[in-house]
Amino acid sequence: MANFNFDDPLFSQFAFYSGVVLMKTVVMSVWTARHRFGSNTFANPEDCKVVGDKTLKPRFDNQDVERVRRCHLNDLENVVPFVLIGMFYILSRPHPAYALLHFRIFAGARLFHTVAYLTPLPQPSRALAFGVGFLVNVSMAASVIMAGKF
Amino acid sequence: MANFNFDDPLFSQFAFYSGVVLMKTVVMSVWTARHRFGSNTFANPEDCKVVGDKTLKPRFDNQDVERVRRCHLNDLENVVPFVLIGMFYILSRPHPAYALLHFRIFAGARLFHTVAYLTPLPQPSRALAFGVGFLVNVSMAASVIMAGKF
Amino acid sequence: MANFNFDDPLFSQFAFYSGVVLMKTVVMSVWTARHRFGSNTFANPEDCKVVGDKTLKPRFDNQDVERVRRCHLNDLENVVPFVLIGMFYILSRPHPAYALLHFRIFAGARLFHTVAYLTPLPQPSRALAFGVGFLVNVSMAASVIMAGKF
Repeated sequence: MANFNFDDPLFSQFAFYSGVVLMKTVVMSVWTARHRFGSNTFANPEDCKVVGDKTLKPRFDNQDVERVRRCHLNDLENVVPFVLIGMFYILSRPHPAYALLHFRIFAGARLFHTVAYLTPLPQPSRALAFGVGFLVNVSMAASVIMAGKF
Repeated sequence: MANFNFDDPLFSQFAFYSGVVLMKTVVMSVWTARHRFGSNTFANPEDCKVVGDKTLKPRFDNQDVERVRRCHLNDLENVVPFVLIGMFYILSRPHPAYALLHFRIFAGARLFHTVAYLTPLPQPSRALAFGVGFLVNVSMAASVIMAGKF
Repeated sequence: MANFNFDDPLFSQFAFYSGVVLMKTVVMSVWTARHRFGSNTFANPEDCKVVGDKTLKPRFDNQDVERVRRCHLNDLENVVPFVLIGMFYILSRPHPAYALLHFRIFAGARLFHTVAYLTPLPQPSRALAFGVGFLVNVSMAASVIMAGKF
């Protein structure tokens, strides 16, 4: 049975892949900021003042900014549940190799999802990446619910 | 004192109810997709191309899609903090029966919140469901802050 | 090495600061509701009926409501990853005083971020608060990835 510390191989692997997808998620903020400054698209009057153009007003219609924001929100909807469900999952006595496969597939799918969203690649690239990550979450959540007590 | 593994009854119960509300949260994505395809409402140009209608443009004003999206975001705002706060809470030596009551009330309130939002039921159904879940989170967070060290 | 329970000083400190920033995050919902009722700005037809004005329609353009919502979403994007990354981080054998510094700086930066966003204070107040919290997350995530196994 896995333990909740870095001496446990499964925990160490889960920590690595969780760290990678969480790092990717927090970095999306920088990507949004880059597009906001690149297109002078800001959401608040006090932000507009920074660039020194007094005629600038808050805008919410730049499609590059909105695309990154949608990608970021999609991470919150999928990466955050992955880490939360995974914390229970590694303690539910999964076969270690099978569990590791879940983590690797999820991390790969979510990294590809970001590439597919921001390039953008033609569909169904992004839909497939999303679907694979979604199925990993559902599979782990089902294991957790079955291991838990009502 | 509770331990962080499935041999501990309180952990097992927390895992079960967390698994249920997290599963419900990730499934909201499928519900959004269902409404997007049902109404040909897509957020990206590359998504519009999939359905084969070349005149289709990204749209953000379908009220069924937006309703599911608001419900999903409300889950991120409440279910995710529940699981995070709960992980500390079960280790803060709560009375086990009292803690279990927190988990059951939260899970019931959030399942009802989704029904109330998507039906939609007349207010204050949804507001009550939200309020009950909110109070569970505040109660658990207060216990965690008092058990923690400055 | 830190353990995952309240007998461990580092865990207790991480629990305290996580409890504080999570409590702050969930309370944002109340702040949004306050502004919705104060300006009769509701997102759903069934919500409009509650205030008894039959001519009221859903609106999404009140800048006070939207400002609180942006602040809340920014918390989801930063506070939630902090707690998730931190759970691994405290188990990755950081120097305890260095780890505690991370938690205190993060909590201070995020509390100030909320004040800067809702007042609003002139920029770059909010940008600095965001940046400091972001760097704490990146620093902890880097430690986790290096402690984990591929």
